[in-house]
Formats: sequence, C-alpha cells, structure tokens
Amino acid sequence: MTTEAVRLTHWQDQVADKRARQKASIPKEWLIPSVPEDTTNVIDIPQTCGLLTQRELEITGASEVTELLGRLASAEYSAVEVTTAFYKRAIIAHQVVNCLTEIYVEKALQWAAELDAYLKEHGKVKGPLHGLPVSLKDQIPIKELETTMGYAAWVGKYAEDDAVLVKLLLKAGAIPYVRTNLPQTIMWGETYNNVFGRTLNPYNRRFTPGGSSGGESALIAMHGSILGIGSDIGGSIRVPAHFCGLYGFKPSSHRLPTYGVVNSLDGQESVPTAFGPLSTSLSGITTLVRSILEQEPWSYCPNTVPKPWQQDDYSLKAHGEGKKLCFGIMWDEGSVKPHPPIQRALEMTKKALEAAGHSFIEWQSLRHAEYVAVARSSFLADGSEDYNSCLTTGEPIINSMDPSADPSDVPAFRIPRSPLSAYKVWQLNKERKELRKALLDRWQATVSQTGTGRPIDALICPVAPYAAVPHGRTRSSIYTIIWNTADYPSLIIPVTKVNPAIDTKPTRESFWGEEDEVVYNMYDPEAYEGLPVGIQLVGPTLQEEVVLGVGEVVNAALKAAQKQDAQD
Amino acid sequence: MTTEAVRLTHWQDQVADKRARQKASIPKEWLIPSVPEDTTNVIDIPQTCGLLTQRELEITGASEVTELLGRLASAEYSAVEVTTAFYKRAIIAHQVVNCLTEIYVEKALQWAAELDAYLKEHGKVKGPLHGLPVSLKDQIPIKELETTMGYAAWVGKYAEDDAVLVKLLLKAGAIPYVRTNLPQTIMWGETYNNVFGRTLNPYNRRFTPGGSSGGESALIAMHGSILGIGSDIGGSIRVPAHFCGLYGFKPSSHRLPTYGVVNSLDGQESVPTAFGPLSTSLSGITTLVRSILEQEPWSYCPNTVPKPWQQDDYSLKAHGEGKKLCFGIMWDEGSVKPHPPIQRALEMTKKALEAAGHSFIEWQSLRHAEYVAVARSSFLADGSEDYNSCLTTGEPIINSMDPSADPSDVPAFRIPRSPLSAYKVWQLNKERKELRKALLDRWQATVSQTGTGRPIDALICPVAPYAAVPHGRTRSSIYTIIWNTADYPSLIIPVTKVNPAIDTKPTRESFWGEEDEVVYNMYDPEAYEGLPVGIQLVGPTLQEEVVLGVGEVVNAALKAAQKQDAQD
Repeated sequence: MTTEAVRLTHWQDQVADKRARQKASIPKEWLIPSVPEDTTNVIDIPQTCGLLTQRELEITGASEVTELLGRLASAEYSAVEVTTAFYKRAIIAHQVVNCLTEIYVEKALQWAAELDAYLKEHGKVKGPLHGLPVSLKDQIPIKELETTMGYAAWVGKYAEDDAVLVKLLLKAGAIPYVRTNLPQTIMWGETYNNVFGRTLNPYNRRFTPGGSSGGESALIAMHGSILGIGSDIGGSIRVPAHFCGLYGFKPSSHRLPTYGVVNSLDGQESVPTAFGPLSTSLSGITTLVRSILEQEPWSYCPNTVPKPWQQDDYSLKAHGEGKKLCFGIMWDEGSVKPHPPIQRALEMTKKALEAAGHSFIEWQSLRHAEYVAVARSSFLADGSEDYNSCLTTGEPIINSMDPSADPSDVPAFRIPRSPLSAYKVWQLNKERKELRKALLDRWQATVSQTGTGRPIDALICPVAPYAAVPHGRTRSSIYTIIWNTADYPSLIIPVTKVNPAIDTKPTRESFWGEEDEVVYNMYDPEAYEGLPVGIQLVGPTLQEEVVLGVGEVVNAALKAAQKQDAQD
Repeated sequence: MTTEAVRLTHWQDQVADKRARQKASIPKEWLIPSVPEDTTNVIDIPQTCGLLTQRELEITGASEVTELLGRLASAEYSAVEVTTAFYKRAIIAHQVVNCLTEIYVEKALQWAAELDAYLKEHGKVKGPLHGLPVSLKDQIPIKELETTMGYAAWVGKYAEDDAVLVKLLLKAGAIPYVRTNLPQTIMWGETYNNVFGRTLNPYNRRFTPGGSSGGESALIAMHGSILGIGSDIGGSIRVPAHFCGLYGFKPSSHRLPTYGVVNSLDGQESVPTAFGPLSTSLSGITTLVRSILEQEPWSYCPNTVPKPWQQDDYSLKAHGEGKKLCFGIMWDEGSVKPHPPIQRALEMTKKALEAAGHSFIEWQSLRHAEYVAVARSSFLADGSEDYNSCLTTGEPIINSMDPSADPSDVPAFRIPRSPLSAYKVWQLNKERKELRKALLDRWQATVSQTGTGRPIDALICPVAPYAAVPHGRTRSSIYTIIWNTADYPSLIIPVTKVNPAIDTKPTRESFWGEEDEVVYNMYDPEAYEGLPVGIQLVGPTLQEEVVLGVGEVVNAALKAAQKQDAQD
C-alpha cells in the first residue's frame, strides 16, 4: 500500500467514523420515514411527518423569540419541553436537508432541566434568554464536544473550553443545543464539506440554503431552531438568511465576542469575520445582541469593543425618534443587475416605507469593485497555506460546490494566488482605509439631500442579485462583501417570495459585462418559484443599535403593507 | 560624476534647502544670543534670555490648560497675544534644543486674529479650545504646509488637506501653530533625523528628550507649548513625557482619529499607532481628549470607534466614585530592573495614594517578553521595505542615535529582518490575541484580591527603567511597548526628579540578564541629577475615561503629598 493510499483511507475512515457517530447520536424514535428525493419542497415536513405532538408544533411554530421567552419565563412552557420540541424538529429537518453537525440531546436536556429547577427554586429566570434553545454554527466550540469545522483532519478534536459566546449564552440562560453545517474552508456561499456532506434548501432541495452559515439557515427556516449564531466574512450570515427567508444580522467585526471560536484564515484581520444571529424574528436578532452586550463581553474577549447596548440609539433618539427617516436606496451595484424578484423586494420596501411617511434618496454604487478586490486579496493573501494546513490527512480540497462539476475545475474567484508579503498586505490595508474614508464622506455628504438635517438614516440594497440558486451556481458575494470591507453592520429582512406571475424574465439587449450576462441567464421564474427574497439594511460602523432600530421601522412598515394588501 | 554622487548631492541639497527655508521662517527679532554648548540645563533660558515680556512670561508660564482657556474665553488674554507669546517661546526653545520642524507665524496669527474677531462679534468662544495654541508632531499634515516627517525625499511635499485631527482642532478653536521634530523612520525612542538634526533635552542637553515625539516633549518642557499631539507605537508619547517631566497619554489605537496623518509602516495594523496628547497639565490631556470626542471624530475618520466621551466613566461611577480605589503595582517587568529614582517614584505614588485611602496589590509581569517579541516582529515584518521606499534619494538610514557611534553599527533591536509572509503575520496576530486574552483574564481575576468587589481600577508601573539617558543610549522600550501590543490606554504622570542624595546607586552582585547589567551600568546619580521621573498608569482597552479619571485621583494624591512634604 502506498503512503498516498494509506492517507486516503485514513481521511475516509475518519469521515466514516464521524458520520456513524453522528447517526448514533440521533434518538431512534426521532427518525422519520425517508422523504422521496423528488419532493423538493420539504418546508412542511415537520407538520406532516407525524412525529411532533400538537403542543410541540405549537411551541416550534413560534417565530417571535420574545413571545417564546415570555412563555418560558412564566413557566407556561418548561425549558425541557421547549428544548425537546426544538431538538425533535431539528432532527426532522436534518433528515431532509442535512443541516446538523454535533447532536447531543442528553447534555442539552440536562441544561434545560437545571433551568427549570432554577426557575422553580428562585421564582425568577436565570437570565434574559432563559430556556431558549440556540443553534450554533460549527465554528463555536462547546467544552468537551468535537469541533470539526467540516475538516476530516479535525475529527476527534474535542474542545477544552467553551467559546466566550457559549459562556455568555449559558449565563443568559440559553441552551446551545445543536451545531450546524458549513462549507469546507468556510469561504463559500454554499454549504458542503467532505465530513458532513451537503446542506439543502428546505424550500427547494435542489437549491442551496446559502453559506457559509447554511446549516443555520436551513435549520431555522424549518423551525428546527428559532435563533442561531453564524459568522460572516463576505455574506455568510446574510446570504443564507436571504436564501431561506430569515432575519440575519452581521454586526461590525468587533462588537460581539469572537474569542474561542475556530475559523479559517485565523489571524487575517484586514477584513475580519463577524459573528451574529439568524432568526425567524427581528425580536430574536435584537434580543440576542442586547443580551450579549448586557453581559459586558469585553470583560471576556479582548477583541470586543467596550460599548454597552445603546438604548437611545435603538430608540432612534438622534434620528427623529424614527418618525421621518430618509433612506438611501441602491438598486444595483452597477456590474450585475439583480433578478426581477430582488428588484421587486426593494420596490415593496420603498413603497411600504413611503406609505409610513419616510423618504428615499438614490445611492449610486461607490468603487464597488475595489471593495471586492481588497477583500479577495486579503482572503487569498496566504496562498492557501491556511487551508492546506487543515488538509493534512489527504482530504481533497473542494473546488466547486456544483455536484456535477469536474472536481478539478476551479471558479475564477476561488483560484489560489501566490502568497503576499506582509508589506503588500500593508498596502492593501491602506487601500481599504481610503475606501472606507470615501464611503464615510459620501454617507455624511447626504445631509445636503435628505431634508432631515441628518445624513441618510440607513441604506437599503439587495443582498444578492438572485434568490437562492441551484447547488453550485452561487457567484461571488459582491452585494454583501462590500459591507465586510467597510465593516458596516447589516441586517437582512425577509420581504417576499419569487412569484413567476409577476417576476417575469425581462428581455435584455445588452449586458453590463460577462458576469451580468451569466447571472441574467441563471434566472428562470418557474424554477425559482416560492423561494424567499430579503433586503439588506446597512448603517455605519459600530452603530448596531441604529441599524436594529431602523430595522424595526422597516419591518413594521412591511408588515403594515402586507396587512393592507391582504385587506384590499 | 557617477549616479551615486548625483544622488548624494541631491539629498544633501534637499536638506540644505529645507534648513535654509526653516531658518528664514524665524522672525529675526526672535533670535536670541547663542547659548554656550556647555550650558547643559537650558530650562530657564526663556525667562533669562530677555526676549519675552513680563506678560508673555506670565502667559506662557501657565501649566493648567483649563486656566489658560478660561482667560482666553473671558478675553483677559487675546488669542493673538497668547499665540504670539507661545510662538516666541517656542522659537527660543528651538534655538537651544532644536525641537521644531515647520514654522509659520503668519498663518497661526491669522487664525488667532479670526478667533479674536469671532469672540468679539459673537460674544462667545468658537469652541472648547478657543485660542489655545497646540503643537503637532511632524506627522500631522496641515493643508498647504510641507510634511517631511524627517525624510529628505519628502522635502517639498505639500499637504493637499488637513489631517482629521487638524480639522477638529480648528473647529474646536485651537491654533495648530507649529510642528515638531521626530526621528528618521519614527521607530526610535530618541529624536534625530538627517533633515532637521537632533533634538535635545532641555534639562540636560547631553541627554535625549526621548522619542519619537521628542520635539513635542522638549518644546513643552520649555513651555514653548502647553499642549501638543504626538503618536505612540511603542512608547513614543510616553517615553518623551517621562524624560521631560510631562503628562502624556497614549489612548487605545482607534479612540482618537488618525485619518490623514502620515506614518512609518503605514498599513501595519497588528500593533497600531495611537495619537494622543502631551501637556504640562493633566487638565490639558483631558481637555484635548474630550474636545475631540465631543466632535464625533468617527464622522470624519473611518478608523475611529464611535464611542462618545463617557462622563460617568470619567467620574469613576462604576469605581466607587474613586473614593477607595485598588491599584495593581508592577515594580519591574522581570528582565530589566529600573534605576533607583524610578523605584522611588513608584514608592512615592504608592505612599501618596495609601495616605489618601487607596490600596494596592502586587502585579507580576505576565509574559512580557512575548509582548515585546510580537510587537517587534510586527514592526519588522516588511523587511524594511517601507523605510527603503522613503530613502530613494540616497539619504542614508540612521542606524544609531549615538553621536559617537560607527554609523554602520546597528543595535540588536534594530537589525533588519527578512520579510514575513502574510500567513506568518496571521500567526503573529493569533499570538497577540492569546496574549491579550491572558492579560484580560489576569486583570479580571484580581477581583478576588482587591477587596473592592471590582478588579484593580488601574495598574501602576515604570515608564522606562531609567530617566532620560544620554543621546544614543536608549534601549528597547520594553516597559511601554507591552501596552501597545495589549492596546491598553496609558497615562504618564510626572512625579519627581533624580536626586543623587537619595537615589544612590546600589551594589548588585548578580543580574537578571545581559540587558539588566547594561542598564544597571548606565546609572550614574550625579550625571542624572535633576532629570524628571514619571510613572505609567494603565487601564483596559478603550476605557480612556477611566484611566483619566483615576489619573485625577493619582495626581491629586501626589500633589497633596508634595504639599504635606513642603509643610513638614
């Protein structure tokens, strides 16, 4: 046997072992009959499979995190029954969209039992997230559990300590009950790795749930979780939220604690990763951010800015109490025109906000390509040394997320580059600083156009040029990555679903470029039917509370418009 | 003529041209008779040279910035007379310690006249720094003025715009009236370059005023300025403040705006440069920081954390109103023992604070050498490519600050290294993150020892193992650089002066290492007589207000003890 053959056997053995252990971690009584492969939409499987009781369907059917927390606090629901219900539903989801990595029912139920005992004994909740099950992307270690991050070489790597995020979730009374899938190297807008395989979009299993936090988005879309934590370095929270009809929030990179997480490209700080929530409700997003900040995470994580939750900012005190906001709107970034349903989601949002008394100014794309180039150069600066250091067992690098692709074909934006010198990275950092300054000046200068006496209160733009795409068809995340390079917080709000009757494919005579034509050709109204569409709401660095406060205004306007439409 | 010869002529011509223009910029009537070289202490020259009027001596004799601002606001002093007085005194100082780079009397007096007119017309000040002359290190560009940063190749480089700091100073009513010297490459604890030459310590001209903000410290010590702005990447504000008996403050790196400044190693972000004030008074330090933060510098500089001035933190609300603080005290960092006057300054501070009701716990040095190593590796990561890109005219690199040294001898901590790859820098960043976490955990853990229910309120330690040293004798800044790697704000408070009668040289049988022995041998009580000594007061990242608030407590205790001593 050659060394190569030994190696290959070795990594495949590691994977086989991990998969067997994952399978064994699922309680037998929670297995459901297999769903035929050609059942593409599985979003209703939890309701129809018969495994969940009526009460469990009621519990997991909730979307509003604050409501669920209220029922837990009043002991209307016990933590054990809520955790059990969500765990069962997560396992159901997993069986149809393959969204989980670590499954540890006993440990989670023990935490839940302790919380129930606490509430009974003290007559009060342990913390603001008392009894809430929270799912975690497979980058957030929990003491004594494996963290493979999708690498075969990491199978059997057990965490010695909780990540700071886990510590603070536990202190707040949350139950970090399950971990979720992500792509190999994390640096993908889809979710597939050699250890756990591919995660599917529950609205259409032939489509991707997005990535890299695609295990989260698939799970939460199926209500197998009500709130989860992902990470975002180029769109990895926002694209999955958009593809799966969820709220998602990428804070500025140093607002929520990151100490103790594992990551690709660890130590790359030019365009850093941010950790943040995905949820079925905006209240879930806000509650998570607030409950972490209230615990002074900077006392645990050296990279977290010591800025407490700013209630005045969230109430939009300096933004006219949110009564007459002025938004910037960017319909496209000038190189790739979004598909019709994306444009429609922006139009719906604009109309809803105008009906509520708010106004808009147009925002033209600003040096967008340079933002993308700086981010990409920063990510590829190591010449793949980081990836290679995790592929020591012979496990092959995944070059494409397309199931039918030649595994040796590498898409343009993934082609490895020669390593950069430290000096070259310094020059990139200078470029990034200039880009951020140009953006800031542009933002501030809008004060002359808004009529409010303030610069725009937030910017609205597409999340991606498309709704979810078939596996392997995701292009570079150009609509999201700019806000990583800028380090601006960005909130995803679900708006609508693709409707072939109105989102017809326009004829186009000319294109803005090759990428524009490729993306145009991807659109097929019938194939995309029913897929969710969101919008992106952006504000300046470290102004998380403002973005969330404005998010409430946008969300309320959209809900009011929906109600109006239903009445008409 | 060879190309090499042409080049050499060229850079020397550039320098000669710049020096001639600098000389011409000094009003002839402000020249003083030359002071003999063997007059080492020139601190009283402004009083004795006869150039300043009694009123000008009174104006420039002030130490408290708030008092001077009060007199300007009440029009007791006009901005023109204050600027004239400080300009004259700065020019006097320059003639004996060579501290200035850009001199532009007319421009400064025009700003002053405009401020006087404003006050007269509106009956109120233009801003919180109305009429205050503020000196700037030669890294802070002012529109239309040259910024050479000590490089011959930069002679004739005129700024197209004000740095953000300058914009905000002007908006606050300050007059950025003069710029000050710094060392070639900036990365030195002394102040010498080929363009402007060497800056001297006014307490003893055979000694260095420190660096890299040594033009500032020499100028302010002579009351040629009451408040200046320097920069600090390893001790460059703090060491000069300590060597010249001043208050100096290095904030966290992203608290005050840096956009628009020029710098060495620009783009190096692993251990970044912070800009901050030096002053004759703590009120100067606090007033500067507050007046910048009140202008929301994050609306101008994309790298500035949007954290407004926290008055509650400054009032020590969460620190028992500052009534019973508990300090950590680090007597030494374990590898280089400080000279006797440094130890005495710490003892005096401890005694004064204990007399005021505060307490202390011992703080042992924590992985100090690793902090220094990470910073040094980060600074040298480019293999000198940045320096070399500024030495294109044939100007030689300065290898030593020792006037008698062989110019080709390079001290150990300055030996150029091979360039690092981006990947290697990522590994350094990971190391730095672990060091910061260990420090944070240690700090938080002191809660079990303090008896206040809080971790230590601040840490007190030496600024350097010595007071100012003879030119060329500065060693690596090991006592200050740790707080750059940690990114902790640090305040320098002047405490005492070297007194040979009490600061006698102890006999030592053994040494902690080679560096310890070298530093021990440098001490000579008589030679160091009268040189100032300060202490360093440190707090956690981005808690500038807490450090300044605790600084007020320390300062008051020291002043009370002085008063007590004077009465005894």
